[in-house]
Amino acid sequence: MASMIFTDCSSSTTARLLPLTRRPLLHTTNGIGALRWLMAPTKPSSRRALSVCFSASPSPLVNASLTTEESAKVIDGKYVAKTIQKEIAAEVSRMKEAIGVVPGLAVILVGNRKDSAAYVRQKTKVCESVGINSFEVRIPEDSTEQEVLKYISEFNDDPSVHGILVQLPLPAHMNDENILNAVSIEKDVDGFHPVHIGRLAMRDREPLFVPCTPKGCIELLRRYDISIKGKRAVVIGRSNIVGTPAALLLQREDATVSVVHSRTSNPEELTRQADIVIAAVGKPNMVRGGWIKPGAVVIDVGINPVEDAKSPRGHRLVGDVCYDEVSKIASAITPVPGGVGPMTVAMLVSNTLISAKRIHNFQ
Amino acid sequence: MASMIFTDCSSSTTARLLPLTRRPLLHTTNGIGALRWLMAPTKPSSRRALSVCFSASPSPLVNASLTTEESAKVIDGKYVAKTIQKEIAAEVSRMKEAIGVVPGLAVILVGNRKDSAAYVRQKTKVCESVGINSFEVRIPEDSTEQEVLKYISEFNDDPSVHGILVQLPLPAHMNDENILNAVSIEKDVDGFHPVHIGRLAMRDREPLFVPCTPKGCIELLRRYDISIKGKRAVVIGRSNIVGTPAALLLQREDATVSVVHSRTSNPEELTRQADIVIAAVGKPNMVRGGWIKPGAVVIDVGINPVEDAKSPRGHRLVGDVCYDEVSKIASAITPVPGGVGPMTVAMLVSNTLISAKRIHNFQ
Repeated sequence: MASMIFTDCSSSTTARLLPLTRRPLLHTTNGIGALRWLMAPTKPSSRRALSVCFSASPSPLVNASLTTEESAKVIDGKYVAKTIQKEIAAEVSRMKEAIGVVPGLAVILVGNRKDSAAYVRQKTKVCESVGINSFEVRIPEDSTEQEVLKYISEFNDDPSVHGILVQLPLPAHMNDENILNAVSIEKDVDGFHPVHIGRLAMRDREPLFVPCTPKGCIELLRRYDISIKGKRAVVIGRSNIVGTPAALLLQREDATVSVVHSRTSNPEELTRQADIVIAAVGKPNMVRGGWIKPGAVVIDVGINPVEDAKSPRGHRLVGDVCYDEVSKIASAITPVPGGVGPMTVAMLVSNTLISAKRIHNFQ
Repeated sequence: MASMIFTDCSSSTTARLLPLTRRPLLHTTNGIGALRWLMAPTKPSSRRALSVCFSASPSPLVNASLTTEESAKVIDGKYVAKTIQKEIAAEVSRMKEAIGVVPGLAVILVGNRKDSAAYVRQKTKVCESVGINSFEVRIPEDSTEQEVLKYISEFNDDPSVHGILVQLPLPAHMNDENILNAVSIEKDVDGFHPVHIGRLAMRDREPLFVPCTPKGCIELLRRYDISIKGKRAVVIGRSNIVGTPAALLLQREDATVSVVHSRTSNPEELTRQADIVIAAVGKPNMVRGGWIKPGAVVIDVGINPVEDAKSPRGHRLVGDVCYDEVSKIASAITPVPGGVGPMTVAMLVSNTLISAKRIHNFQ
């Protein structure tokens, strides 16, 4: 039943309940600093979910939020990702013209998971759009670890490959650590090798690659001119691929960072102190309005499918953040989908370009 | 002038001002859980500094603390370190008898810094006391990076050496990163290589070595039966060798961790939320009574020399924590000296033993 509270966000009731008048916060100063929408569109996002998160006992803050029409700026990851892809395409062209090298990304996909296949398709498509060569290996679910390692070894040695990505999750019979560690650290564009994470954690050290999703989160803040230095930040979740590197990145940018996780006794209390919240926990609508300090900036990394009889596919995607509640309290928020998701792939091609430039010493 | 507020802790006035009645908190339950002094001595530590930290405007909490006689349990690092050294000595004997191998630690000291020489002497002495072989290289201040690298390479290849330590700080003309990264990760008993820090940060990964000082902090908590799981912890300082790995270790133990640093706007406010505070910033007496939640456990990593005309050497050592104020509010606290300091060397010989056991596959 507890999870029902999080997932039961009905759009039909909400659309009637809430007059969704949007007031763009152009050039206003708020708790997190001036948001100058230099490059983001000011029109309301058509992708904005009309949903509300029900609770047996909503907090006073949540109730208060329902009485105001003020609404957070939508951080449009799709738009920013496209802009970045254009920048990358220009750099790829410049590099090709100058030294005749085209960056190459190799992707290894094991098994037939539909979501993994969809992610790989998306990556290949974006590579194509920016002019990066992509190489794809698909091998069956029952392949051995040794077979995967053989392909990794070949790509490690292949000078036309500058980035290697092993699509996760791997089948249960494989050891993730062995396989990920086999990728040459110079081509580990996912940034998952411990040496990258270690350098990310350390002062006066530079990681060769920063993991794509957290890098995308920080890039969104940067592109929206949201200052991080000296701000209180809370990261919800401590996964190796998002939460932990996101916390390390925020600290590198001089935020004061707290990490909230499953063992945290009062996650909402600590989160409510934050100027910047990154939610990366994989629980639909977990972060409620009462968790958020008015004016905070909220980055929602979650992409959770929830049942929806009205959707043609029978489900729809929601984030870790209860969008409708939080967007009334935050000063800026990423939607799901269309927020962090597109940034991940943009950062992957960015990392591939960085790798090719470094390997060929091209500036 | 600001630093005067931190450093001006006069013992003569304090001894008169404060009746230092100590009430051992044996078997009492406090904010952080039951402290059972299974192995720590219950007598008041003779090394306890009698000092107070003056402030132009002491917080109400500080004033309140001066009116109570209740006092924190002293976490006796010297005693714990000796206990651990006895345990290590027994293991070293067992290993020698079983497979004829004696663990070996190599130390490289560049230049003539008195403090560095003293640390190296201390390390050699402890190695001797536990039966670990020590190898020492001393080369002049104006040596080249190449010379240091040559010695590292020799120790990397030497089967009688299981741990290699380059005493920091290195002369300014040398690149710390180059030199530290030259140490074989299998012999990097300082645990400073990014791959160790990365694994420390990651879930389901095990670092080969954990840096000695933060490992010593956690070991003190463990030996004093202070639970970490689910507790709020604040680490003050984010250095590569203490603050950052200490935060990562606390998070591994399921604490909810916040890192306070020079860019944090209200360090005292956040610190006051913590059940466990680790101060590792290198500023004498920076953490005042008003920073601490009543009943919190405070680990003071700072070892700061401050002028003291009455001391035979003209100076004495104080921590980052204003001991006299904080010991009235905390439930347990490490003294300086005699707290974390002795633990660092104990953890170094512990890491050397771990390394020898791993290399020789001895359990």
